[in-house]
Order: sequence, then C-alpha cells, then structure tokens
Amino acid sequence: MNSSTVNIDLGARAYQVRIGPGLLSAAEEFLPWVEGAQVCVVTDETVAPLYLERVTAALASKQVVTKILPAGEAIKTLDGLNHVFDALLDAPCARDVTIIALGGGVVGDIAGFAAACYQRGVAFIQAPTTLLAQVDSSVGGKTGVNHARGKNMIGAFYQPRRVVADTDTLATLPRRQFAAGLAEVIKYGVIADAEFFVWLEENIDAVSAHDAAALAFIIERSCINKARIVAQDELESAGARALLNLGHTFGHAIETGLGHGAWLHGEAVATGMAMAAALAARMGRLLAADESRIVGLLAAAGLPVGPFAGLAADDMLRLMRVDKKVRDGRVRLILPAGIGAADIVDDYPADLLAATVADFTVASTATAAAKTA
Amino acid sequence: MNSSTVNIDLGARAYQVRIGPGLLSAAEEFLPWVEGAQVCVVTDETVAPLYLERVTAALASKQVVTKILPAGEAIKTLDGLNHVFDALLDAPCARDVTIIALGGGVVGDIAGFAAACYQRGVAFIQAPTTLLAQVDSSVGGKTGVNHARGKNMIGAFYQPRRVVADTDTLATLPRRQFAAGLAEVIKYGVIADAEFFVWLEENIDAVSAHDAAALAFIIERSCINKARIVAQDELESAGARALLNLGHTFGHAIETGLGHGAWLHGEAVATGMAMAAALAARMGRLLAADESRIVGLLAAAGLPVGPFAGLAADDMLRLMRVDKKVRDGRVRLILPAGIGAADIVDDYPADLLAATVADFTVASTATAAAKTA
Repeated sequence: MNSSTVNIDLGARAYQVRIGPGLLSAAEEFLPWVEGAQVCVVTDETVAPLYLERVTAALASKQVVTKILPAGEAIKTLDGLNHVFDALLDAPCARDVTIIALGGGVVGDIAGFAAACYQRGVAFIQAPTTLLAQVDSSVGGKTGVNHARGKNMIGAFYQPRRVVADTDTLATLPRRQFAAGLAEVIKYGVIADAEFFVWLEENIDAVSAHDAAALAFIIERSCINKARIVAQDELESAGARALLNLGHTFGHAIETGLGHGAWLHGEAVATGMAMAAALAARMGRLLAADESRIVGLLAAAGLPVGPFAGLAADDMLRLMRVDKKVRDGRVRLILPAGIGAADIVDDYPADLLAATVADFTVASTATAAAKTA
Repeated sequence: MNSSTVNIDLGARAYQVRIGPGLLSAAEEFLPWVEGAQVCVVTDETVAPLYLERVTAALASKQVVTKILPAGEAIKTLDGLNHVFDALLDAPCARDVTIIALGGGVVGDIAGFAAACYQRGVAFIQAPTTLLAQVDSSVGGKTGVNHARGKNMIGAFYQPRRVVADTDTLATLPRRQFAAGLAEVIKYGVIADAEFFVWLEENIDAVSAHDAAALAFIIERSCINKARIVAQDELESAGARALLNLGHTFGHAIETGLGHGAWLHGEAVATGMAMAAALAARMGRLLAADESRIVGLLAAAGLPVGPFAGLAADDMLRLMRVDKKVRDGRVRLILPAGIGAADIVDDYPADLLAATVADFTVASTATAAAKTA
C-alpha cells in the first residue's frame, strides 16, 4: 500500500503530514528535517519496546539521545516536562538539536512543548503512534501540559517540521485507545464534513476491524479537515479553529474532575460531544434525529456517551468555567447545528446547560439506558 | 521633563517603549493595551511596597490580580513560574487576561514566559523598574527561566504589547543594581555605537550621579540600539542579534558556576566583557588600547572586571559549552573588534581561551590589580 501526504499550509511554517505503513523505519522520512548533528527522541514506556529501535536505526547517522517517559497522562505536567529538559541538558543537547516525539498525544504534547521552550525553541518532528495522535494532536501545533486546576492550561502553539504517521503502529494499539482516537475522527464529520460522517456511519465496522484501506482513509481525511481549519486560524484567534473544540470544554472538565488519566481524552471528548448535542437539541439548535445519529455513531465506535459517576454537577460546571474558551467571564461552547456544521455559542440559557450537566452527572441506570439506546 | 518613545519595528508584533518620569501612575500608558477585563500584575517583594499601589490605582477600572514573588534570581525556575500559574488559575484568569511585569529582569523574564505559556499565550506588558530591565531585558521579547544546569535554558521569544519605563523608579535603585544596568548600556557602545561609547566615557560621572537628563538619554539610546538589532533578527537566527550576547557566554558560566543570584547578571556580563576583550586582544583582533578603554569604562561604572574566586577554570570552560550559542559542538563567542564593532567568532584557539579563563579564575591580588589598572 502506498503512502500519502497532506500539506499543512501555514506559510513560513508549512509542513507535510506523511501517512502510510513502514514510515518509522525510513531514514528519508526524518533526516532531511533534522537540523544539526543531534536528535532527542522522546517516547514512553509503552511505545519504546515496540518502535524505538527502528527509529534510532533510521537515525543512525546522528547522535541520538532518548528520553523514555512513564506512560499515561499523569506525566503531562511541568515536572514531567522538566524530565525532558534534564535529559537534554545531561547530553548536553545544543540549540540545533531536533526533538522527535514518538508516541501518542501525551508524548507529542510534552515533547512539542519541550521543543518550543528548550533554549527558546528547537526543531521538532512528530511521529504519532496512536490513532488520536495521527488524526488530531500531532497536527496543528498545539503543545502543552496540564495544571492541577485545568487541562492544557500551560503550553504553546509550536508547529512541527514534519509529521510521520506510520499506520503499522495501529496494529498494536489497545482497543480502548483506538476507540478514543475515533472520537476525534467522528468530530470532523460532525463539525465540517457531512459526507465523511455518512461514510463513517456506513463503514464503522470495517474501521473497527482495522481494515487497512479504511484506516488510511480516515487518517488522511481527518488530517485534510484539520489542515483546512488550522490554515484558516493557526492561533485560534478567529472562530474557525475553535470549532475543533467540540466536546472539549465538557470533556476537559470530566478529565480534570475525575483526575487526569482516569478517562482517556477521546473518551471524555465523546461524552462531551454527546452533552453538546444534548444541549443543542434542548435549545432547538439541533434536530433530535441528528443528535441520535451523533450519539449513535459514537456508541457504535465503542465510546462512552451516557451519564457517568464520580463528579457532581456543580463541580463540573465550576471546572468548565476555567476552560480556555472563556471570554469576558462567559464560557463559549461549540454546539452542533446539524451533521457537518457547528457554531460557537455563548448565549445558551444557564438553566439548560445546568440541566444537561445534571442529566449526565447523576448516574442512573434508567437514564443511562435511555441515553445510549 | 517630557517622556520619549522608541518604536520596536517587528511588523505584526511592533510595539513602543515609553520612557519618562511618572509613567507608572498614568492609566493611559496601560489601558489601551489591556485586552480584556482582567489584569494580573506580577512583581516582587522589593518592588511591591514601592510601586504596586500606583499601578493598581492606574488600573482601577479592571479586575486586578497581583502575584508578589520573592526578590532575586533564585525564583527564576520552573517552580517559580508555577507560582504565577497558580495565581492565574486561583483567580481564575481567562485567556483574555493581560499580564503586567512590574520589576526588574527576573520579574520580566518569569512574567513574560508565563504570558507566553498561560493558555498558550496571553497579552503582556513590561513595566521595568531597574536600569538593566529598562535598557535591555524588557525590550526584544526574550523570556524564560533558569535550569540547574544552565541560565535561561527554558523560555520563549514572546514580545510585549508595550514597555512602560518609568525613570522615577531609578531613584530607589541600589547602587549595585544601577551599576549592573550600566554593563548592558556600555555593551551597546562596544558592539554597535562608538559615538555613544565616547559619550559614556565623558559623562560616566553624571550618569553615576543619576543626573536625570543623562539617565533619560542612556535609556533611550540603549533602546534605540537594541530595537535596531532586534528588528534585524527577532529570533536570533541570523547573526545580528547574537552580538547582543557580548560577555554573556562567559557571564552565564560565572552565574551558573557561582550559583544563580551570587552575582548580579550585569556584574557577570561586565566581567564577561572584560574576558572577551582580553581574549580578542590575545588573538590580535582588538588593540590593547581599546581593551583598556572597554575595561576602564566598565570599572569607572563600578563594575567587576578582574579575576574572581569560587570557580575553577575547568568548571568554567565546561559550563561555557552548554551555552545556547553552541553550534555543531563549538561554542561561538562574541568578541569585540574595536570600539563600536564586534564579531561572532568560532575559530579562536582553544589554548588562548583556556589561558584567558585561567587568568580570570585564578584569583591573585597582583593580577587583579594589573587588570583593573
């Protein structure tokens, strides 16, 4: 099977996303984008035994420093970031080092932020190994770490020089991680690509069975959607990029409220999208039939879309208010307007938001059954 | 006395440096550059009792959050940075908050880096209260913190929206801090402005006596020099901006080797400039007469220019090798070529560098007397 390329059109910061099998072993996918004589590969304890050796072999002509982080979201803090700086300064790595993130979204976020800050910015390459990272987090330049009081509160916009998405890595991805990635794939269909949404409805079984052609298609189509939106609004200063946050204000509150790492990011975003759809339907902004299609596709992908335990409604509402989408004291929400369309909304009635949050945070078997039916 | 304005010409990131008495009390110097309804003033325990109240009074129409850091370089770490994030998230401050740095170089570096990273970047205003910050660190967008293994190793290029330099603040500045600021003032004369260097030689007594007109002149002239250089090379990717690092590779090694905070930054840079001049003279790149003028002006400003105790030559050479100016394993040094001219040099003989470092790190009263004569 051939590889494909998606161009991220950001002027002086333009780069390519490469998608295909076997790319991690291919020196030519990396070396032309390596700045100097040193490379620092940042990865984690799950990914290192599977893929680190093939990457270091491809980079054999360089001095390679490796930093293996503990797996999971808990390391995504300023302290975890400092572990990467320790490794860079132990070497020591100079300002012409190139940092390569080999792993999922957590590794990409930490390594990318380290690249943004080390000596005020060094070269950076993303080598995502999870579906979520390949379709979303490795593209677009968002990097950062969590703070105890909020997710991704500390970070930078910092674009990679290249994204190398080796589809072979998805074969080893645990089922739960794979489903979490599908949450972001489905998101593109909801906010911007009705045709893709329909394709996903019709092909979700092939996707879940890891059919190679289906996987390559959803990664490429997701990256094309993301590239188009990011090119319009790189720094999320206009409205376009904010649409990518569908489900994320709800989702971040779930992740922070339950403790970072309890849920996978994509799982929280899936439930967040279900909540956004529920609120939009309550407000009369979304047809009940479309809400059902959104929730139905998420559920078919194996994602949680119903009420959950462990977080009181008031706590969830409070956590939503420290989200990055707050402007002039008001949380702006992304709400679906149909299949393939969404809006930034800040004039939602507070009582309807509270009722929606109450529906999802008060765990009741009956409600849960009704919601996922 | 009137205020003056220096334009920093950085295209979409252009801004003005305002210089003059009484500016900290003037709401119109701040409010047009405040983004939203919230302001976070970051300052330290020395500056807060002197100037915080007049700034918060000027900002009375906004919700003002204040964060008072311990004074001194020791707080300039990732941990210190996290104290600022704690304050921002306790409030909580939204993405439209404007961070104001009220203080010297340490406060500006931490607050600016916090602004660069909080929610991936918020609005930022510099209100420098030391001579060093007014003539150097508040202008040009360098922000960051130290790592145990090196100074300013973690940071970002992040431009303020405005610099408000109130010259009244210099009246309360301790003599040692004032002299440290003069090190950077003299640096502009050495690397780029021979006429200014001569003016400083002739007027150093008026400057040291805090003559108001002399102070206003050196701040404006320093900012004009810095603005011109930064506009040529914002990200220090070409050669121009690197010249601003005259004395800094030596100086950072001194600061790290003796422990951050033992010497003031400007003191270490002054000795570093004397070392750079000594090496340049040894290499035949600088006339002995010009070396004497450089060392003489620094000494007349009350700055250390001779051998110092507490750091072995080998340790100093090792510390210099982790400097940010390393390219392809070689430390690039800025060496003066005369009065008003300097070069980036990486082909200096290792033995001449070692001999220069040995001269300055082996404390001997006889040598010290000879050097400062």
